[in-house]
Amino acid sequence: MYEAQVRVTLKRTVADPQGLTVKHALESLGFNDIAGVRMGKFITLQLKAKDQAKAEAEAKDMCAKLLANPIIEDYAVEVIKS
Amino acid sequence: MYEAQVRVTLKRTVADPQGLTVKHALESLGFNDIAGVRMGKFITLQLKAKDQAKAEAEAKDMCAKLLANPIIEDYAVEVIKS
Repeated sequence: MYEAQVRVTLKRTVADPQGLTVKHALESLGFNDIAGVRMGKFITLQLKAKDQAKAEAEAKDMCAKLLANPIIEDYAVEVIKS
Repeated sequence: MYEAQVRVTLKRTVADPQGLTVKHALESLGFNDIAGVRMGKFITLQLKAKDQAKAEAEAKDMCAKLLANPIIEDYAVEVIKS
């Protein structure tokens, strides 16, 4: 069994109002040295793949087809044995 | 400037209906060796901290106070120079 850890992040050029809201909320709590906050998704997939390379290829395929929107989001996949 | 990469994940004992929905959606696309999907958040913080240790301490403080719900969520912080 393999665990694919997927990070889905907004591309740099895409505005992130949710991140801006979190930044303001943190500042209202007294955190005053924040230059920026960007919100993304962290998805953990448990895969019954044959080997690590297959698990990684499959997770990337899932990102391209469903987990990420390639127009506005980037993704990164890291696979570990679990 | 430091970049804190924060992963917020649901604790293992907490049900994740969103993850289950994503699992079913992936299966309907033909991905049939998925044992589980868990959805979490990936938050990127740009911090004007003095040093890496201060940036990490501050990011963890932000998690405890706002970014994560410690009753149902775990968090992990990784800090890199940016």
